[in-house]
Amino acid sequence: MLQAAFFKLADVIPIEDAVKYMKEAVVKTYSRKGQKIVDMNLNAIDEGLSALHKVEIPEPWKTADDCKDNKPLVGRNQAQTDYLNDVLIPYGSMSADDIPVSKFTAIANGMIPSGTAAFEKRGIATDIPVWNKDNCMQCNWCSYSCPHGVIRPFVLNNNEAEAEELQGEFVAMKGSKDYLYAIGISALDCTGCGSCQQVCPARTKALEMVPSKEDAVEKAQARFDYLFNQVEEKKLPQNMNALKASQFRQPLLEFSGACPGCGETPYAKLVTQLFGDRMFIANATGCSSIWGCSAPSTPYTVNKQGRGPAWANSLFEDNAEFGLGMTMSMKARRKEIETAVERLVGVIGEEAKEWLASKNDAAASEATGKALVDKCEGVASANEDAKYVIENKNMLIKPSMWIFGGDGWAYDIGYGGLDHVIASGENVNVLVFDTEVYSNTGGQSSKSTPLGAAAKFAASGKKVKKKDLAQIAMAYGYVYVAQIAMGANPAQTLKAIKEAEAYDGPSLIIAYAPCINHGLKSGMNKAMLEMKKAVDSGYWTLLRYNPQLREEGKNPLSVDSPMPTESYESFLAGEERYDSLRIKFPETADKLFKEAERLALDRYEELVNRQKTFDRIIENEGKSN
Amino acid sequence: MLQAAFFKLADVIPIEDAVKYMKEAVVKTYSRKGQKIVDMNLNAIDEGLSALHKVEIPEPWKTADDCKDNKPLVGRNQAQTDYLNDVLIPYGSMSADDIPVSKFTAIANGMIPSGTAAFEKRGIATDIPVWNKDNCMQCNWCSYSCPHGVIRPFVLNNNEAEAEELQGEFVAMKGSKDYLYAIGISALDCTGCGSCQQVCPARTKALEMVPSKEDAVEKAQARFDYLFNQVEEKKLPQNMNALKASQFRQPLLEFSGACPGCGETPYAKLVTQLFGDRMFIANATGCSSIWGCSAPSTPYTVNKQGRGPAWANSLFEDNAEFGLGMTMSMKARRKEIETAVERLVGVIGEEAKEWLASKNDAAASEATGKALVDKCEGVASANEDAKYVIENKNMLIKPSMWIFGGDGWAYDIGYGGLDHVIASGENVNVLVFDTEVYSNTGGQSSKSTPLGAAAKFAASGKKVKKKDLAQIAMAYGYVYVAQIAMGANPAQTLKAIKEAEAYDGPSLIIAYAPCINHGLKSGMNKAMLEMKKAVDSGYWTLLRYNPQLREEGKNPLSVDSPMPTESYESFLAGEERYDSLRIKFPETADKLFKEAERLALDRYEELVNRQKTFDRIIENEGKSN
Repeated sequence: MLQAAFFKLADVIPIEDAVKYMKEAVVKTYSRKGQKIVDMNLNAIDEGLSALHKVEIPEPWKTADDCKDNKPLVGRNQAQTDYLNDVLIPYGSMSADDIPVSKFTAIANGMIPSGTAAFEKRGIATDIPVWNKDNCMQCNWCSYSCPHGVIRPFVLNNNEAEAEELQGEFVAMKGSKDYLYAIGISALDCTGCGSCQQVCPARTKALEMVPSKEDAVEKAQARFDYLFNQVEEKKLPQNMNALKASQFRQPLLEFSGACPGCGETPYAKLVTQLFGDRMFIANATGCSSIWGCSAPSTPYTVNKQGRGPAWANSLFEDNAEFGLGMTMSMKARRKEIETAVERLVGVIGEEAKEWLASKNDAAASEATGKALVDKCEGVASANEDAKYVIENKNMLIKPSMWIFGGDGWAYDIGYGGLDHVIASGENVNVLVFDTEVYSNTGGQSSKSTPLGAAAKFAASGKKVKKKDLAQIAMAYGYVYVAQIAMGANPAQTLKAIKEAEAYDGPSLIIAYAPCINHGLKSGMNKAMLEMKKAVDSGYWTLLRYNPQLREEGKNPLSVDSPMPTESYESFLAGEERYDSLRIKFPETADKLFKEAERLALDRYEELVNRQKTFDRIIENEGKSN
Repeated sequence: MLQAAFFKLADVIPIEDAVKYMKEAVVKTYSRKGQKIVDMNLNAIDEGLSALHKVEIPEPWKTADDCKDNKPLVGRNQAQTDYLNDVLIPYGSMSADDIPVSKFTAIANGMIPSGTAAFEKRGIATDIPVWNKDNCMQCNWCSYSCPHGVIRPFVLNNNEAEAEELQGEFVAMKGSKDYLYAIGISALDCTGCGSCQQVCPARTKALEMVPSKEDAVEKAQARFDYLFNQVEEKKLPQNMNALKASQFRQPLLEFSGACPGCGETPYAKLVTQLFGDRMFIANATGCSSIWGCSAPSTPYTVNKQGRGPAWANSLFEDNAEFGLGMTMSMKARRKEIETAVERLVGVIGEEAKEWLASKNDAAASEATGKALVDKCEGVASANEDAKYVIENKNMLIKPSMWIFGGDGWAYDIGYGGLDHVIASGENVNVLVFDTEVYSNTGGQSSKSTPLGAAAKFAASGKKVKKKDLAQIAMAYGYVYVAQIAMGANPAQTLKAIKEAEAYDGPSLIIAYAPCINHGLKSGMNKAMLEMKKAVDSGYWTLLRYNPQLREEGKNPLSVDSPMPTESYESFLAGEERYDSLRIKFPETADKLFKEAERLALDRYEELVNRQKTFDRIIENEGKSN
């Protein structure tokens, strides 16, 4: 239809010829699908010709001058304010060429202020979620799944709940007598993907997607801004389940430009909720470097204490090494401060000892670090070590070192380095967003692409099986390894991420991430549900291998997936990357898919048997001890 | 002693001071080893001072003019003859600076003639083996083990045996009524390592190491030259065991400059005996690129038909990719000739069809290729395809594509590429000479270095375990993988090499190679016996994983090592790389060695269980079919 309209407008060949060629192509292409399909396509061409009508464009669009008339922005400090007004606004209003070089002196070292994406209110959603408080179970799945950090739960006291912006939209908090609960939605940052609504257990009840009319958006945004800016963090009730608890923590990744329904950002966001305030990230090139920092803004942000992830991207091919370098430099700097604190034991006593005893415990080192700094303030004028500790107080909290990247990086281009880094035995955590394809560059096959999947360079289906990165990493024995799928099993996901971070050695988490390149027939808003299907069908296996357990004489391997209960074939049929092969090359597809299923079953059985082997080895060790 | 002599001669500080300092150092260093050791060292210093005596150097050594007075050499063709006289001789007589540029025009493309190492008769052995024919069992282990291709068995007919050079030194061939058997020793190429004598089952009987006096060397060399040049290849009796049969084939790697007792070259030599006449080798940087081609000569040579390995070395970091490129170009060139032959079916009929049917079978494609070329000769004047086939007749024989390298390459620097190459599914064979250390550069730790081994960068023992490259490669499922140790199990070694070459996909052979860096206490002449110890103690596990078997519904994994029967600890005690740790850091050593032994047992049990898992999977498949 569009093509017919194009030829009528463009006048590149006589319109009669164009129609003739198009109709001939329709007959040739669709005949084997039946006359009905042919007729529908022929009609579409005719309609494309007759339905054409002119759309008047408003006069101001010619120059878009009103877009350049931006109000000055106010950041959380002068540096950010300067950056927003000097760089971000001109960039966003297509006037970056006019920025004088002098405005870049503050960022000449390549570092830009965190949390700038929050100032790019894009308002691109055609629909936004609306919260129906009466149907809400307060599970926080909506927040957990949101790729953009847009929808969040808040815990209020009675006082906070009285604010006018809330308009009475809150409920009593389950499991607490003191607090109230509200969901906030940053409507201008929402992409309208609808993931939140799809995972909502009371679906179509607690969340509804409604057209994003101006007043609805404004109201939602005002509510969110109030909740985000004015509501204090509370001490949460104990025994709250891990998923729910995780979502009351502030995400330090918000409002990125990732695709609606992105399968990668929810993982990254979750990690920042757990460790973001003491986190360092070396990011490989790929989607995660694009949504992670597209000039001029970054979605990585800081909490109210001004702490957030330090993030950097070097090259595609050296990211693991880059992250190891960050880790080694942190190790050296912490060793340096440790030496200073050791010398301070004789000077200030208890506080120095307490920090030394707790330096590798995140929460404890934060508390003892603060006490140590306070004490140092008193002696710093006469003591160089105390001065050093104050100047380097950021080194007192145990850091959380991370390497992020996609499968193109981890399985292919950066793999040589990744292998070297995990082999090193150093305490560094690797998170792989596994979309099973080069997503950012348009869907080329990687070594992670599974047998039979259609991708660029594998148009007739990939002919060799997916590289088993988990099994490869497990061969080291001293590397923590996990395969996770956050939509399939949040408890396992959270357990794996926390165990990986806690393990005093290299960790590798491989996270299954649906992607627009997969062509989910159900839509990207069902990315989380697709993960569950992947696990239930045996397509993706959840596992954790924890060397720490082996050291404690326990079984290090836990296969967390149950025996497949759903059909492998129907999982494949639900994604274009597989189903397109079935249409284009039915015989090849049939052969490859059967082989892929067999391999999946083999792998599952191998893993389960491996777990049993560890049981036997450990039992025998027990006997011989 | 030498140091004392040095100070007396060099006169850099007063000799009294030098002696004082040296004696103080002796007392400090050796006191904890007892007074006897101290006294022995003090005496050595005194003896060094008094035992000094002047050695007169013959007058001609001043200019070494007689070394420059070389007789012209005669190669197997004009190109080689030119190279030998224009380049090799001036190089060898320290006159390379005098070679005019014009002499290099023939090798300006970087290719040098094969088989030039044979013209560098070094005569460096202090002892050479002498064959005692009456004690010989004709097992050919001596030839199989020789790192330099110096000692070889020959099969003679009665006529050949009458030659004067043999001096009656031959015996009746076991298992044959027609033939006689003789061992030839190229004494001027021998390094005198004595490996041959150590593996001789009738040790000290069939081979004896004797001082290499001039007449003994000349006699041995004349015998060898006769056997090598004048004795025709025979059709061997059937049912000869694989090791024995392999050694009647001409090694196409001979007389390299590898260390005496080298554990790498016997593997490479063996591969050339099996496939050398149709072999392409991409060689990584490392020992194997040094003994593989040290300017101006190469030990890779050709057989009497002028066919031998094509060998090249690109870089350390890209060798796998380089080899894959060679493979892909061969594939393309063979596809090209295949297309030409397909068109020739209508022209010359049967011979074209026969080659097409046999093109991927080494022996058959050689025979049908010859017949095809003969037929093409008749029609080439009027047929472009026939002309093309004749011009590219080297493409008719199925090639054998190899990538060689050490563990520094395979486990570390070239691993990213190696992984990519084995993942590709292409038909290429990789042979890793695993010395568990960077041998060529002086013994730095690689990811192959095992837990507890002392090496540069791991002076107090490596703290993490050896990378399990076999298990990593097996994770692909479609990669042929073997771990071999040729001194431990020649039948398994030969089986693995042949299976790897025959497998129509990527193959990885990891070959355990003792090295001077290991510090074998028993000496490098026992390298082959050390391999057996490594396997018997469970230090090295023999295995083969053949995806072809899996396709045939059989168990692909064969753990070829028996349960360890010998002490792991005594194996470690026999090598300085481990034992030095026990002396310097006894507690660390004890801990690391115990852990290493436990890991070895775990690995063995895991492998055996994996083999059983495959049995179960295959059994279940059988039931469900």
